[in-house]
Amino acid sequence: MRSPIGPYLASIVDEIRPEDSGELADYIPELADADPEPFGIALSMLDGQVYTAGDAERPFTIQSSAKAFTYALAIRERGLTKVLAHVGVEPSGDAFNAISVDERGRPANPMINAGAIGTFALVPGDTVEEKFDAVQRFLSDCAGHDLDIDEGAYTSELSTAYRNRGIANMLRASGGLAAEPDIAVEGYIRQGALRVCAKDLALMGATLASGGVQPVTGKRVLDDETAGHVLSVMTTCGMYDAAGDWVSSVGIPAKSGVGGGIVGASPGRLGIATFSPRLDVHGNSVRGVAAFERLSRDLSLHLMRIPETGHLALREAISVDYISNDYGTAAMYRLQGIIDFVAAESVVRRMTSDQIDHRYVVVELTDVAEIKLVALQMIAAVMAGFAHEGRQVYLIDPARLYGPDDLQRFDIADKVTQVDNFEQGEAIGREREAAEAGD
Amino acid sequence: MRSPIGPYLASIVDEIRPEDSGELADYIPELADADPEPFGIALSMLDGQVYTAGDAERPFTIQSSAKAFTYALAIRERGLTKVLAHVGVEPSGDAFNAISVDERGRPANPMINAGAIGTFALVPGDTVEEKFDAVQRFLSDCAGHDLDIDEGAYTSELSTAYRNRGIANMLRASGGLAAEPDIAVEGYIRQGALRVCAKDLALMGATLASGGVQPVTGKRVLDDETAGHVLSVMTTCGMYDAAGDWVSSVGIPAKSGVGGGIVGASPGRLGIATFSPRLDVHGNSVRGVAAFERLSRDLSLHLMRIPETGHLALREAISVDYISNDYGTAAMYRLQGIIDFVAAESVVRRMTSDQIDHRYVVVELTDVAEIKLVALQMIAAVMAGFAHEGRQVYLIDPARLYGPDDLQRFDIADKVTQVDNFEQGEAIGREREAAEAGD
Amino acid sequence: MRSPIGPYLASIVDEIRPEDSGELADYIPELADADPEPFGIALSMLDGQVYTAGDAERPFTIQSSAKAFTYALAIRERGLTKVLAHVGVEPSGDAFNAISVDERGRPANPMINAGAIGTFALVPGDTVEEKFDAVQRFLSDCAGHDLDIDEGAYTSELSTAYRNRGIANMLRASGGLAAEPDIAVEGYIRQGALRVCAKDLALMGATLASGGVQPVTGKRVLDDETAGHVLSVMTTCGMYDAAGDWVSSVGIPAKSGVGGGIVGASPGRLGIATFSPRLDVHGNSVRGVAAFERLSRDLSLHLMRIPETGHLALREAISVDYISNDYGTAAMYRLQGIIDFVAAESVVRRMTSDQIDHRYVVVELTDVAEIKLVALQMIAAVMAGFAHEGRQVYLIDPARLYGPDDLQRFDIADKVTQVDNFEQGEAIGREREAAEAGD
Amino acid sequence: MRSPIGPYLASIVDEIRPEDSGELADYIPELADADPEPFGIALSMLDGQVYTAGDAERPFTIQSSAKAFTYALAIRERGLTKVLAHVGVEPSGDAFNAISVDERGRPANPMINAGAIGTFALVPGDTVEEKFDAVQRFLSDCAGHDLDIDEGAYTSELSTAYRNRGIANMLRASGGLAAEPDIAVEGYIRQGALRVCAKDLALMGATLASGGVQPVTGKRVLDDETAGHVLSVMTTCGMYDAAGDWVSSVGIPAKSGVGGGIVGASPGRLGIATFSPRLDVHGNSVRGVAAFERLSRDLSLHLMRIPETGHLALREAISVDYISNDYGTAAMYRLQGIIDFVAAESVVRRMTSDQIDHRYVVVELTDVAEIKLVALQMIAAVMAGFAHEGRQVYLIDPARLYGPDDLQRFDIADKVTQVDNFEQGEAIGREREAAEAGD
Repeated sequence: MRSPIGPYLASIVDEIRPEDSGELADYIPELADADPEPFGIALSMLDGQVYTAGDAERPFTIQSSAKAFTYALAIRERGLTKVLAHVGVEPSGDAFNAISVDERGRPANPMINAGAIGTFALVPGDTVEEKFDAVQRFLSDCAGHDLDIDEGAYTSELSTAYRNRGIANMLRASGGLAAEPDIAVEGYIRQGALRVCAKDLALMGATLASGGVQPVTGKRVLDDETAGHVLSVMTTCGMYDAAGDWVSSVGIPAKSGVGGGIVGASPGRLGIATFSPRLDVHGNSVRGVAAFERLSRDLSLHLMRIPETGHLALREAISVDYISNDYGTAAMYRLQGIIDFVAAESVVRRMTSDQIDHRYVVVELTDVAEIKLVALQMIAAVMAGFAHEGRQVYLIDPARLYGPDDLQRFDIADKVTQVDNFEQGEAIGREREAAEAGD
Repeated sequence: MRSPIGPYLASIVDEIRPEDSGELADYIPELADADPEPFGIALSMLDGQVYTAGDAERPFTIQSSAKAFTYALAIRERGLTKVLAHVGVEPSGDAFNAISVDERGRPANPMINAGAIGTFALVPGDTVEEKFDAVQRFLSDCAGHDLDIDEGAYTSELSTAYRNRGIANMLRASGGLAAEPDIAVEGYIRQGALRVCAKDLALMGATLASGGVQPVTGKRVLDDETAGHVLSVMTTCGMYDAAGDWVSSVGIPAKSGVGGGIVGASPGRLGIATFSPRLDVHGNSVRGVAAFERLSRDLSLHLMRIPETGHLALREAISVDYISNDYGTAAMYRLQGIIDFVAAESVVRRMTSDQIDHRYVVVELTDVAEIKLVALQMIAAVMAGFAHEGRQVYLIDPARLYGPDDLQRFDIADKVTQVDNFEQGEAIGREREAAEAGD
Repeated sequence: MRSPIGPYLASIVDEIRPEDSGELADYIPELADADPEPFGIALSMLDGQVYTAGDAERPFTIQSSAKAFTYALAIRERGLTKVLAHVGVEPSGDAFNAISVDERGRPANPMINAGAIGTFALVPGDTVEEKFDAVQRFLSDCAGHDLDIDEGAYTSELSTAYRNRGIANMLRASGGLAAEPDIAVEGYIRQGALRVCAKDLALMGATLASGGVQPVTGKRVLDDETAGHVLSVMTTCGMYDAAGDWVSSVGIPAKSGVGGGIVGASPGRLGIATFSPRLDVHGNSVRGVAAFERLSRDLSLHLMRIPETGHLALREAISVDYISNDYGTAAMYRLQGIIDFVAAESVVRRMTSDQIDHRYVVVELTDVAEIKLVALQMIAAVMAGFAHEGRQVYLIDPARLYGPDDLQRFDIADKVTQVDNFEQGEAIGREREAAEAGD
Repeated sequence: MRSPIGPYLASIVDEIRPEDSGELADYIPELADADPEPFGIALSMLDGQVYTAGDAERPFTIQSSAKAFTYALAIRERGLTKVLAHVGVEPSGDAFNAISVDERGRPANPMINAGAIGTFALVPGDTVEEKFDAVQRFLSDCAGHDLDIDEGAYTSELSTAYRNRGIANMLRASGGLAAEPDIAVEGYIRQGALRVCAKDLALMGATLASGGVQPVTGKRVLDDETAGHVLSVMTTCGMYDAAGDWVSSVGIPAKSGVGGGIVGASPGRLGIATFSPRLDVHGNSVRGVAAFERLSRDLSLHLMRIPETGHLALREAISVDYISNDYGTAAMYRLQGIIDFVAAESVVRRMTSDQIDHRYVVVELTDVAEIKLVALQMIAAVMAGFAHEGRQVYLIDPARLYGPDDLQRFDIADKVTQVDNFEQGEAIGREREAAEAGD
């Protein structure tokens, strides 16, 4: 049977397509001659499943959408500290081509041209070729296949790149550019001429949304922290001087490009991309913005509309017979899903507030998919407390979410009995009963 | 037994307390004389459970942290469109006391003084008293008890409020202020003199984080959309000219005040507040920033580090005997937790890719806590598809997550049999079998 | 017979009057309702002779043209150093109502509103009344008669003075305003409501042009240095953000007002004023600017077109029989006009380059109207040189342009014989001859 | 005998030389290594007489002082309208290396780097060489001898000219630069490397002060109007962001250079130059500024301290016997010096206010050195008036200051008898008497 998601996307394309306001980017001759009509949408789930509608496989130049990825590469290769020394992270309130240098001589952020040129300069390599090769490889890794370059667009933009040359020279003059201006500008323009389609961009967005793992190839191209940092900067600076409006109305970290693309990344959820060449006054694709607004609302993807999940952590908190009726009963806590701080809080609150006079306390993690360090620590503290009260604490943890190190550092190795399943716990308990009875 | 969360917060207070850099706000005489030493932290879960450490119940003036709430009130009372006509939502890149008026004559955003004065002017009422009463009532509603005013701080600040008077008059001159400057300034300063403690602020933050419901009183003070909008603006503009850095390093919507407080709201999770009077150059509490960074990291509260939950949606997808062995088997899909788009996508993908030749398809929502509209629609589409193939589709939906309207608009009222439990489904199936057999 | 100057001015009025572009100042209700048609021109010579054409005696409010005079008063009463501590002298490049505060917190210059408010605050007095009385008296002294106030204009502007109140409060906040904002704003607006006519303004301009002496009353209201300083600031800052264009195309220090007046002062020459209410985008009277351009060109009043006068200093340099043929001949230098540095240079160059073997050297100052200190010194040095060569040096100086002190400090009291006229010199020479002959 | 001017300048050098504050320009390697000690002053009278003191013939690079002259050249070759389309004339309030582009995309003025680069681009020629040759020729013409280039300084500055390249590219991007950025920057830097000494600069200044005639060679390199325009712009923009302070305290149009030179031009009087490499924070030579302040004060060169000359215009206004006692007496007006508007006003006022019942009116221009058009017109009008009253009007005008065209256009050819001298007038009168008597 066919998934309803494709038809849903197709219906959005149909509804938004009649919107024909906006203008082609006019400052790059090649872009000014582009076909203004194509419109495509692509979603990429974090396991690589991609849904598309419209012209989602039509190639276009990535332009400024590349900035987010080159920024990620620069951090990966040079470290965040080094990159922050050259490029800030503050929204500037200015247009994409403003210089917007802060009091330290840094471009305000890596999403405006000044900051993106400064970022490119930080990419390893001494020549345009070396630096660009690194960028091309990285973006290809994010897309999951080799991206090629639109030489016509590159040449066209390079011939009129006065403003970017101006910016680069100004940055170099103020000491903030880590390469010769010509190298930085040529490479920066070259990276913008890389050819992608909406599907590529959606996968690239999913790579960021997943914390740095390309969904199809499974290759980790970034660590989680860097991916999160890049998403943060996309949130506040990705949509130029319309960033605040974007966060309010869409609430998905994103980066637009004057080629007509927008790449979005809903953290922990999916990647999104749109393509439609006509731009609004901020330089953002008109239909792309409309599609993102629609998708954010329909799919509840807004960063500020995160559903409350904490109360789902505890599947069951029950009192069970344990080690046969003869010996005693147990308070049993069965956890499920992802146990973050909020989930753990609900669990430990219940555990610490229950009036427990059972001999046994059992915490079962069998259905837990993921557990945060803070949650391990909180639950360990409570288990230690029960042990201190003289109760037997059994931790049913077949996946060993508590590793040996965790047991040591939370000081529960001697206080809690880690078992694979209920039966194993019962067997141990029975032995212990017997031993005690034998005393 | 005692919860480990209080001790955890206490340990943070102990670790950060030695940090004594920063200066008291010096432009308000009363603040300049404050005791610089207190330091408190409070967390409020969305059900009203509060954890505190240090001087979390020590009163201080709310100052700029009030801006987020007055903004919420203005939107509630006047509507977002009206408010946006007077105050923008873009980060300005400027300091809190800059005028930062955009090309439409609006203050850049409601979190800088200019925008907050403009926001206060929009609160219903003709006099300072009327407007202020509305603000005081609303903030008290968010805190869950009546907040009083520090008259000394009010008088003190009012006597030197030249800059704010300057801003208000400039705004009035450019047509952007909806009240007389003196009314707006006096009310704005009066709202900043409301007395809160960190615990109050944490509850106020939780009110925003929960989508507008005060956690203790259960009173809905805002609709979900307004709460989300306010959080969005706090994200991009709440920490003055350090907003980008804050999003990168903390990633929790927040608003600081020069009285030393910071209120944060982790959407769908919890409210956080800190109090320590010494401020950094941006006007943000030094220890407060440190505590937020620590809490964000320890508790994984960063907006960009949302755990992937989609794959947890499907508890079981099994093939079961249905209506006895004689008649047929069923493909049974048991969903759980919160079903958002990503969760629904994983469910429908599985449903549409399975090779199903069963006579019955059963979707069970018994363990579903919440389901988004988009998910209802997607799953309805798949169920309709199975019905179209001639299969019997049973929806075990005891909570009626699909209401009668949903069945109609998704056009499945005639295609899907909604039942309360497995047994009811079997009974219906058996009747139907009998009827068919009787044909 | 009638002077041709009146008709000349009348012809300019006739030619320019059809120009009806521009708009009435709209931000002050009273001004917006003014009759836009009047047009008048007045010239005041430095001896009080006034020529007018058109509506030169029609009253209007002085508005910003008052700024130059209040600035002069503030300097006279407080000293330039004190005034410079509060208000700068740099053109800001901004519009008249910009705040334009420099890095020291001072308004850029006294001709923009911010600087004029700051200037008014410096006028002696503790209340609006005291300060305003001083201003009214001073401007009346410059006009030569008592100026009264247009209470309607005052009340009208005060009711909408948000922007100026904004500016004053901002200045007070940054520490740069020497009075309470309300006092400064009310007094500033009140001074702008003083009623003048073009003839008044021309006389006020002439007061500055003459170095501080009111042409009709002869009252010295400013010292020469202060008048020069005020003219300097009018030159660079008087015409708001069109200052550079004004200097290029008109080249006369001037100050416009939104009431339609422009006051100009051609240093050492005359005062000029125009009145016509329609304003250009810079806030300057359209016809007034046209008239000033025309007058500057026709009358060669541009500051950069100063005629060369130096070579006219020496009326005659002749060799004459002196003290009868028997005794000897003299080199005689007859100076005339105003002897400034350039004139003195031409004189001393001639004197030092002539091959002089005469026994007598005579310098005659009878026709000299004025001689600068530097010229006294230069000519003294040359006379001393001739005395050193053993020649008799006679200084015919009936007006005692060289005072007794000058003779001492230039060390020529013993070397040069100062006489009233040629005959007295001859008599002395004859005695001296006789005495020498008698030796 | 020796002129006292040289020693006077030497005394200034001695007094100011101990001042050793300020720093060498550090952004050009070659300048940073210069000897900081030299100090020279030069004055050039408008007839080519030059006075110097200190290191006035020591060569240095002209740097920004060239801007004024290249601007003059661009206007001469392209016309003011064309130049104004690319470069404004408003002081920017910004530092010399700010971009300061106005709302029309033009650099604010030609004295900041942006404007000077824009100006160089306007110089005729397609290549750096062609354009630079034109500049080098023109500056050499102003100096009166061939200026050569400091290739080391050129190469040095070119290698670090990032900021200027940045500016040029930005200008090109906004459409305001009339040449390729590299051509404009290289030529601009090359012009700054031209080698001059203080004496050269003084002569160059005198060329502007004289209205465009090189004082020594006598070559007219600019028309009077262009020279006046350049001086206007030097007045408001020549000293960077200290322009207002310079006009107040010095009041001489000037242009500094980071090589340590300052060129000044006192219109109608003289050229001045100083050289001393240590610079203040504005980039102006510390000792140079001190010397200019001293010279302005000592020599009364301030633009706002122009002596009143008008009352000197009338040498004699007497009643004389004319054409013998038998026939009648004459009112005789003998003018002298330069007759500008103010002078003419004093003359015509006297003529029109005298109670004249003489048969003859005689105006004698023999001692008039120069007479402005407006004065010719005013005096013609009065003479016509006397003729209209039936009096005989004789114009003694041996130099034919009234040309035949003037007599026509002022309509006095038939009304006034133009003669060479008194005797000729008498002869004509006598003939006329005889003729009338013969009637």
